[in-house]
Amino acid sequence: MAPTEEPGSGNISAYGATRSTIREQPLGADEIKRMDAYFRASMYLCLGMLYLRGNVLLKEPLKVEHFKARLLGHWGSDAGQSFTWLHMNRLIKKYDLDVLYISGPGHGAPAVLSQSYLEGVYSEVYPDKSEDEQGMQRFFKQFSFPGGIGSHATPETPGSIHEGGELGYSISHAFGTVFDNKDLITLTVVGDGESETGPLATSWHSNKFLNPCTDGAVLPVLHLNGYKINNPTVLARIGHEELKALFIGYGWTPYFVEGNDRDTMHQAMAATLEHCVLEIRRFQKQARESNKPFRPRWPMIILRSPKGWSAPRKLDDKLLEGFWRSHQIPITDVLTNSAHLKVLESWMKSYKPEELFDKNGKLIAELKELAPKGNARMSANPVGNGGLLRRPLQLPDFRDYALKDIEPGISVRGSMANMAKYLRDVMGSNLETFRLFGPDETESNKLAEVYKVGKKVWMGEYFEEDQDGGNLATRGRVMEMLSEHTCEGWLEGYVLSGRHGMLNSYEPFIHIIDSMVNQHCKWLEKCLEVEWRAKVASLNILLTATVWRQDHNGFTHQDPGFLDVVANKSPEVVRIYLPPDGNTLLSVMDHCFRSVNYVNVVVADKQEHIQFLSMEEAVEHCTKGLGIWDWASNDQGYEPDVVMAACGDVPTHEALAATALLRELLPQVKVRFVNVVDLFRLINEKDHPHGMPDRQWKAIFTEDKPIIFNFHSYPWLIHRLTYKRPGQHNLHVRGYREKGNIDTPFELAVRNQTDRYSLAIDAIDRVTTLGNSAAHVRESLINKQLAAKNEAYDNGLDADYIRNWRWSTKL
Amino acid sequence: MAPTEEPGSGNISAYGATRSTIREQPLGADEIKRMDAYFRASMYLCLGMLYLRGNVLLKEPLKVEHFKARLLGHWGSDAGQSFTWLHMNRLIKKYDLDVLYISGPGHGAPAVLSQSYLEGVYSEVYPDKSEDEQGMQRFFKQFSFPGGIGSHATPETPGSIHEGGELGYSISHAFGTVFDNKDLITLTVVGDGESETGPLATSWHSNKFLNPCTDGAVLPVLHLNGYKINNPTVLARIGHEELKALFIGYGWTPYFVEGNDRDTMHQAMAATLEHCVLEIRRFQKQARESNKPFRPRWPMIILRSPKGWSAPRKLDDKLLEGFWRSHQIPITDVLTNSAHLKVLESWMKSYKPEELFDKNGKLIAELKELAPKGNARMSANPVGNGGLLRRPLQLPDFRDYALKDIEPGISVRGSMANMAKYLRDVMGSNLETFRLFGPDETESNKLAEVYKVGKKVWMGEYFEEDQDGGNLATRGRVMEMLSEHTCEGWLEGYVLSGRHGMLNSYEPFIHIIDSMVNQHCKWLEKCLEVEWRAKVASLNILLTATVWRQDHNGFTHQDPGFLDVVANKSPEVVRIYLPPDGNTLLSVMDHCFRSVNYVNVVVADKQEHIQFLSMEEAVEHCTKGLGIWDWASNDQGYEPDVVMAACGDVPTHEALAATALLRELLPQVKVRFVNVVDLFRLINEKDHPHGMPDRQWKAIFTEDKPIIFNFHSYPWLIHRLTYKRPGQHNLHVRGYREKGNIDTPFELAVRNQTDRYSLAIDAIDRVTTLGNSAAHVRESLINKQLAAKNEAYDNGLDADYIRNWRWSTKL
Repeated sequence: MAPTEEPGSGNISAYGATRSTIREQPLGADEIKRMDAYFRASMYLCLGMLYLRGNVLLKEPLKVEHFKARLLGHWGSDAGQSFTWLHMNRLIKKYDLDVLYISGPGHGAPAVLSQSYLEGVYSEVYPDKSEDEQGMQRFFKQFSFPGGIGSHATPETPGSIHEGGELGYSISHAFGTVFDNKDLITLTVVGDGESETGPLATSWHSNKFLNPCTDGAVLPVLHLNGYKINNPTVLARIGHEELKALFIGYGWTPYFVEGNDRDTMHQAMAATLEHCVLEIRRFQKQARESNKPFRPRWPMIILRSPKGWSAPRKLDDKLLEGFWRSHQIPITDVLTNSAHLKVLESWMKSYKPEELFDKNGKLIAELKELAPKGNARMSANPVGNGGLLRRPLQLPDFRDYALKDIEPGISVRGSMANMAKYLRDVMGSNLETFRLFGPDETESNKLAEVYKVGKKVWMGEYFEEDQDGGNLATRGRVMEMLSEHTCEGWLEGYVLSGRHGMLNSYEPFIHIIDSMVNQHCKWLEKCLEVEWRAKVASLNILLTATVWRQDHNGFTHQDPGFLDVVANKSPEVVRIYLPPDGNTLLSVMDHCFRSVNYVNVVVADKQEHIQFLSMEEAVEHCTKGLGIWDWASNDQGYEPDVVMAACGDVPTHEALAATALLRELLPQVKVRFVNVVDLFRLINEKDHPHGMPDRQWKAIFTEDKPIIFNFHSYPWLIHRLTYKRPGQHNLHVRGYREKGNIDTPFELAVRNQTDRYSLAIDAIDRVTTLGNSAAHVRESLINKQLAAKNEAYDNGLDADYIRNWRWSTKL
Repeated sequence: MAPTEEPGSGNISAYGATRSTIREQPLGADEIKRMDAYFRASMYLCLGMLYLRGNVLLKEPLKVEHFKARLLGHWGSDAGQSFTWLHMNRLIKKYDLDVLYISGPGHGAPAVLSQSYLEGVYSEVYPDKSEDEQGMQRFFKQFSFPGGIGSHATPETPGSIHEGGELGYSISHAFGTVFDNKDLITLTVVGDGESETGPLATSWHSNKFLNPCTDGAVLPVLHLNGYKINNPTVLARIGHEELKALFIGYGWTPYFVEGNDRDTMHQAMAATLEHCVLEIRRFQKQARESNKPFRPRWPMIILRSPKGWSAPRKLDDKLLEGFWRSHQIPITDVLTNSAHLKVLESWMKSYKPEELFDKNGKLIAELKELAPKGNARMSANPVGNGGLLRRPLQLPDFRDYALKDIEPGISVRGSMANMAKYLRDVMGSNLETFRLFGPDETESNKLAEVYKVGKKVWMGEYFEEDQDGGNLATRGRVMEMLSEHTCEGWLEGYVLSGRHGMLNSYEPFIHIIDSMVNQHCKWLEKCLEVEWRAKVASLNILLTATVWRQDHNGFTHQDPGFLDVVANKSPEVVRIYLPPDGNTLLSVMDHCFRSVNYVNVVVADKQEHIQFLSMEEAVEHCTKGLGIWDWASNDQGYEPDVVMAACGDVPTHEALAATALLRELLPQVKVRFVNVVDLFRLINEKDHPHGMPDRQWKAIFTEDKPIIFNFHSYPWLIHRLTYKRPGQHNLHVRGYREKGNIDTPFELAVRNQTDRYSLAIDAIDRVTTLGNSAAHVRESLINKQLAAKNEAYDNGLDADYIRNWRWSTKL
C-alpha cells in the first residue's frame, strides 16, 4: 500500500497520491479488503436504485427491459457519503458510540438508503424491501419512482431527521440534535455546494454555543466533491492553506483526507475518523472531569474525493468521475445506446456483486458483521425518530400567571413581560428538554425574565464587563446568535430529536427564514404519512416587535407577511394565533407547548397594551378561537347594524376604540364586536381542522350586515381565508397595506386606515340605514383624526395614545 | 504619541494600547488634530440627531425643552463609521479616488448623515437643511421623527444604495457596485452583528468572482464593535489568530486597527487605509498591465473600536462606552433625570462645538478643507444615485427570435431554450452593462446558450478538465454561486449602481430570498418619494424548474408561493408575468428589460411545451395582459356556458386540454377560453396600475357564468386578487394545494385537481343547464383519469404526456 502523504498546498485535485493529516495505519490488509467490499456493496445498491427495476443481481445480461423507463437520481455524492458512513461503523463498534448521521449534500439519499439496507434496518422498517432478491428489486424500483421515495433523505428514510431537499441546514440541524444530548455524536456530511449557502456558511460558528460538559458533539465531514450541478465549488478551488485557515478561523481543527485510491483512502479515513472521535472524547472528558466547560477547537474532516467516485473516469471522451457530469444519472442514454448500456453493465459488475450478496441477494455474513447491531446502527438511532424520545413538557399552570383585576379597556399591562414569567417557569421546569432561541432579541422582546433560570449560552471569550448584566453562561438555556437561519436550524434539530423549544423574533425579519419554515412544514406533513414516525413537539415561533409598533425603525421593519407564507402550508401542520391581550397570550402559549407536529405561529406585540379579558374569559375565548365580545357589543336582543371584527392586539384595540366612538356618537347603531384569536377558525371546516361551518359563520358574522374587519397583517389574507363565506361581499378588511415610513403608531394606523377613526367612518359609510343623518358625526371624526395626526406629527410622539385614549368600561 | 503595537493574541478588547498591523505614521501632529476635530464634529452631529430639536449649538444651557419628546436612534456604530469615512476622505484627495461608501451596521445612519452634512452635500440636496444654525436644527429634528427620516441609510440619504434595515447584504451589494466599474472602490463597513448572518458570512467569497482587470474593488472594514443589541458578537470574542485565519481563509488579507486612544488610532487608521488603497491599486495595475487577471488576496481592515466610542465609559456605575448599553440612545432618561441631562451636556461640550462650527453653525473652513470636492465626496458619488448612470439596454428585436410556424396546441418547443438565444444577444449587445445571475442553475434552466457570448466568471483555481465544457472564464458575464442571497445581493448592487441584469432560479428556492426581495421592493418604493433619485433598471427574476415539473425532486421542490410574497408589496413596484408559451415569454422578457424601477417576476417552465401563439398574436396578447383565445373557444356569437381560464404554462396546457375534451364530448357546451399573462390585470384598476375596471372584467369573465380558473401557484392568490369582482362567487380556482410527493407531472396535477380531467369534470358540474345529461361523459372522464394515472404509476413515466396527448387544431 502506498504511504499517504501530508497535504501540500500545490495539488488541489483529488487525483494523485492519497494525502492525509493523520498518518496512522490502523487497518490491516484484510480489514481494508472487507471494508472496501462493503463500500462496493453500497455503491452497487446506489447504482441499482438509479437504474434498475429488474435483474437486480445481474444474473442475466443487462437489457433495456431491466431499466426503469425514466432514469432519475443522483450519483455525485453517494460514494463519499457511503465511505464516511462505513468508516464510522467501525468506530461505533470499537468504542460503543452513539452516532446519528446527517446527510448534507443534495440528493445524496442513495448513500443513506443503501447503508440502511445493508445494515438491515430498511428491511425491518419496510418488510417488503426484504434482504433478498425480491426485496432488493422493490428497493431499487421505488427509488425516484412515482409513488415511491425521493432522492433526498426524506421522512421515509430510517434514521433521518434532515431531508436536505433545500441546502444549507445540515450543521445547524446537527447542533440542534446534540444540545443536551451529551453522549451523542452527530456525524454530519456537508456538501461543498451546500457550503456556499449563507445559512451553512455562518452555522460553522455554532461551536461557540456548545458546552462539552452537557452537550454532545458534531463531527462535520466537509465533502469536497469538487462540483455542484454544472460548476466547480468555491471551496474545492481555493488553495490548501486558505481552506485550512478558513476552518481554523471558524474555530475547528481541520483534518484532511484527500485522494482517489481506495486502499490508501480507507487507511487514511480510518485513521482520521478515529483520531477525531478520540479527540472529541478527550475534550469531553477533560471538561466533564474538571467540570470546567471550555471551547475546544473541535475536530472536523475535509474529505476530498472525486465527484461520482468509483464511476468510469471517462465515458467516450467526456469526463465522468471527478467531473460535474457524474452529478445526476451518470450515463443517461443506456436505454438507447447499447454501447453505453454495456459500459454500465461492466461498471456494475466491477463491484462484483456475486462476492457481496449471496445467491438470494442477502449481504454475506462476513460483511454484515461490519455494521453495528440494534440501535447502534446509525439508521436505527432513535434520535432519528425523535418523537419516540419526546416526553411532554412539565408545564406550570398558566392560569397562575394571569393578569389579575382586569378592567376591560382600562387596564394597561405588558402582556409579553408577563408571559415571560410563565416562560421562565416552563424553562425552569424542563431544564434539560426546553430551550429558547432568538437572534439577539430576547431582551428587546421583553422576555429577559427567562434569564433568571437560564442564561444565554456563550462559549466565546468572557470579559470582566460581562458581569454587568451580560447574562452569559456556559451552561445556559437561551440560544442567541444574530442568524435567524442558525437559530431556526438549531430549534428544528432540537425538536426533531425529541425536545421542545421556541423561537422569538422581530416580526419583519422572520421572512428571512420563510424557506426553512416551509421546509419544516413539509417535513412534518410527510411524517404524517410515515407510520413509524412518532410525533415531535411543535415548533413554536413567537413574533413580536410587530408592524404596528415600528415607531422609528421605519418601512424596512414593517412586514407582517409571514402569515401568508405559513397559510400556504398544509392545514394539517400549521396554526396561527393572534392573542389580543395578556391572558389570551398565556392561554395560547400553553396550548402551543402541549401540541405536537405543528408549526405554531403566535403574533403578539411586546409593548404595554390595554387588557380586555380575565383569565377565565381568556381561556373560554381561546377555546372557541373566535367569538362575540358581549361586553363590547350593544346588539343584544337585536340584529346588529354592523359587525366590528378584529384579529391581533393593536387592531383589536383600535376596533374597540372605534366601537366606543360609534356607541358614544351614534348610540342608535347596534354594533357587534367580534375578536379572532385562532386565524384558521375563519376557514371552512372542510379546508382546515380548525375551520368552522357556514352555519356558525353566519351566527357570528351575519350574512347580510357589513363587517369591518381590522386585521394585523396584509388584509388580503382574510379575503383568501373567507372567499366563499356567506355575505363575504359585505366584508371590508383593513390591515397593513404597505404604507409606512418613520411614523408614530397612530399615524401608521391612519395611513393604512386601521385607526379608530377610519374604522368608525367605515362603519358609518356601510350602515345603509343611517343615510345622511350621521354626516355631522362623520365630519367630526375626520376632524378628530386630523387633529390627532397633527399633534403626533408636531410632537413626534403618540406612543402613549394607546394608554391615554381609553374608552369607558360602559362600552 | 504612543507607538502602536502589533496585534497580539492575548487581549481582544479595544481597551489598551493601540495595535495595528501597519505601523507607518503618515500623519503629522497637526493633521491628527484636524482630523480629530472633524471626527468630533461628526460625533457632535450624531448626538444632536439623537437628542435635540433646539439649542443645537449649545449656545445656552441644555434644557428639557431642547429635546425631542421621544428619543430614538442608535449611537453604537456611529463613531467607527465616521472614523472610517473621514480617513478615506484624506486618501480620496491624495490619490484622486472614486469611492462609494456602504454602511453595513444596523441603524448606523447618523454617521453617514453627519458626514454628508459636513461635506455640504446634504444641504445641496435638501436646501432647508442648510449649513447654519437653522439648517442644523432642522437636520437634527427630522432624524427618527415622524415625517422625517429613518435611522438607516434610507433612500433619502445622499450617496446611499444600501439601507441596511435588514442586516447581511453589505458585502454582496458592494460587489454588485464594482463589477464592470473598474475605477470604483466601494468602502464597506461591515457590522460584527451583521457578520453573524448567513448571507454576510458567505458573501466574503465574492472575491472569487471579481476580475482585477475589468472590475473595481471592495474594501471591507469589519467593524468589531463588540456588541449587538444585548449580546457580545461572535467575531469580537474569538482570539486574534482565529479571526485572522478566518479572513485569510475567506481569501482576504486582514489588517488590524485596534484600540480606543484617538490620537494613535488616527495614525493607525491613516496608515492602514492608505496601505490598503495602494495595495488595491498595485494589484489592479499588475493585472491590467499584464492583462493577466488573477485573484489577489485583497486587503480588508478589521477595526476594533469600542461600541459607542467617545461616549462616557460609564454612566453612574453602569458601563456605557464599550458595552451594549451604548447601542441605541446612550442616556435614555435625560428628560426626567437632570443629573443625566448634565452628563449629556458635558459630553456634547467635550466635542467643543464652538471650535468646530462658526457662530452661524457652519463648519469652519479649516475643517471643511478635509473633505474632497464635488462628486469626489462619497455622499455625492453618482453611483449612489445609480439611475443617473443608467443607459437603456441595446435590445435586439425579440420578434427575430420568434418560434415560427406554430400550430396552436400541436407544436412542441422548448420556450426557455429558445428565449436563451434572445438572452444571449441581449448580453452580447450590452457586454459591459448586463449580467446574468443564478445559483448554479443556468445550464439546468436551459439557458446555456448565453455562454456563447459570456461565460461564467470564475477567479478560483482552474483545472485542465475545465476545458471539457466548463464554460468558466475570468472575463465572463454570468455569475453563479450556490447562494441565492449572494446572487440577489450582487444583482441588487449592480442594478442600483446603474446597470441591468436578471436572476434565474428554481422556483421552489426563491423563497430563500423572500426577505431580500421584500427589502428591495421597499427601497424602490421609497425612492419614488425621493425627487432626486433617478430610476434604476428593474430587477428581473426568472423562475423556472417550476412546481408542476418537479418530477423526481419531490415535495421539497414544490412551492410556488413566492408570488404571494411579491403580491404583498406596493403595486407601484411589482409586476408578475406568467407567459403561457415561447413567444409570449419573449415578449414579456423584452418588456421587462425595458422597464424601470420594478421587481419583475416571470414564471415559465424550462421543459419543452406545447406552443399556442404566433409572435404577432403573442405581442397582442401580452399587450392586453389577458384575453379570450377565440381559436380555443366555441362561444362565438353566444353567451358562454362556462369560462375556462388559465394562468401559467402547464395550467394553460391542461385547461386547453380540458376545453378540447369538453368540445369533443359535449359539443353543445359553449366554452370561452381565457388566458392571463399579466397577473395584476386581475386586480381592480383602483388597486394596481395594471388592474382593469369591473366593466372589462365582466366582458371577459361574465358576471354569472361559472369560471374554472387553472392557476400556476396556490389558488388563494387568485381569490385575494379578485375578491370584489362581479360574479366572484362563480370563480372556482384550481392550483397547487400543497399536495405532492414523487409524482409524475400528470399524477401531481391530479392530486391538486389541475389536470384536464378534473377541470373538465369541474366544468360539467358547474354548468347547471347540463343536468344529468352529461353523467356518462363525467363517468368516462373519471375512468380516463384513473387509467392515465395507473399507467403513469406502473411505468414511472408520463413526462411525455404533454407531447403525446395533444388535441386537435380544430379546437
